[in-house]
Amino acid sequence: MGLLSNNLLQSQNHKTIMQTYTYNVKMTCGGCSGAVTKALSKMEGIDNVEIDMEKQLVAVSTSSVSKEDIFEAIKKTGKEVSPA
Amino acid sequence: MGLLSNNLLQSQNHKTIMQTYTYNVKMTCGGCSGAVTKALSKMEGIDNVEIDMEKQLVAVSTSSVSKEDIFEAIKKTGKEVSPA
Repeated sequence: MGLLSNNLLQSQNHKTIMQTYTYNVKMTCGGCSGAVTKALSKMEGIDNVEIDMEKQLVAVSTSSVSKEDIFEAIKKTGKEVSPA
Repeated sequence: MGLLSNNLLQSQNHKTIMQTYTYNVKMTCGGCSGAVTKALSKMEGIDNVEIDMEKQLVAVSTSSVSKEDIFEAIKKTGKEVSPA
């Protein structure tokens, strides 16, 4: 096989594993949860952000961003945050 | 004069000019304003943060951080922001 075929095979074999990380974030209104959603959604590599206001939880799905980098981004919103 | 004296003179002549920059920031509860205050207060070089919830204004005093860098930090909170 030539180089092109090899590259195509490698591309097909490369599996993207989606991870979901969950954090406790103190949010008191729709503005709070909206800000966290917006801040995280803007980040490159973030696929989904889900907020549970009642449980004060933020679940972030990604296949390329580390749990720590997401944690730092949430801290930059000014919200109290801890891993759930 | 020796090198040390020169350095001391330069240090004494260096004037620190405090600037206050103001931004329109959409905040709906105490958690929103608290998050903006916390995010900005954590930044090195920020001397004071004042919030006017009624006017939806944030005033930031600094002698070393640029207006643009503060703007970017507010954007990272996920809040809608524009220069006032």
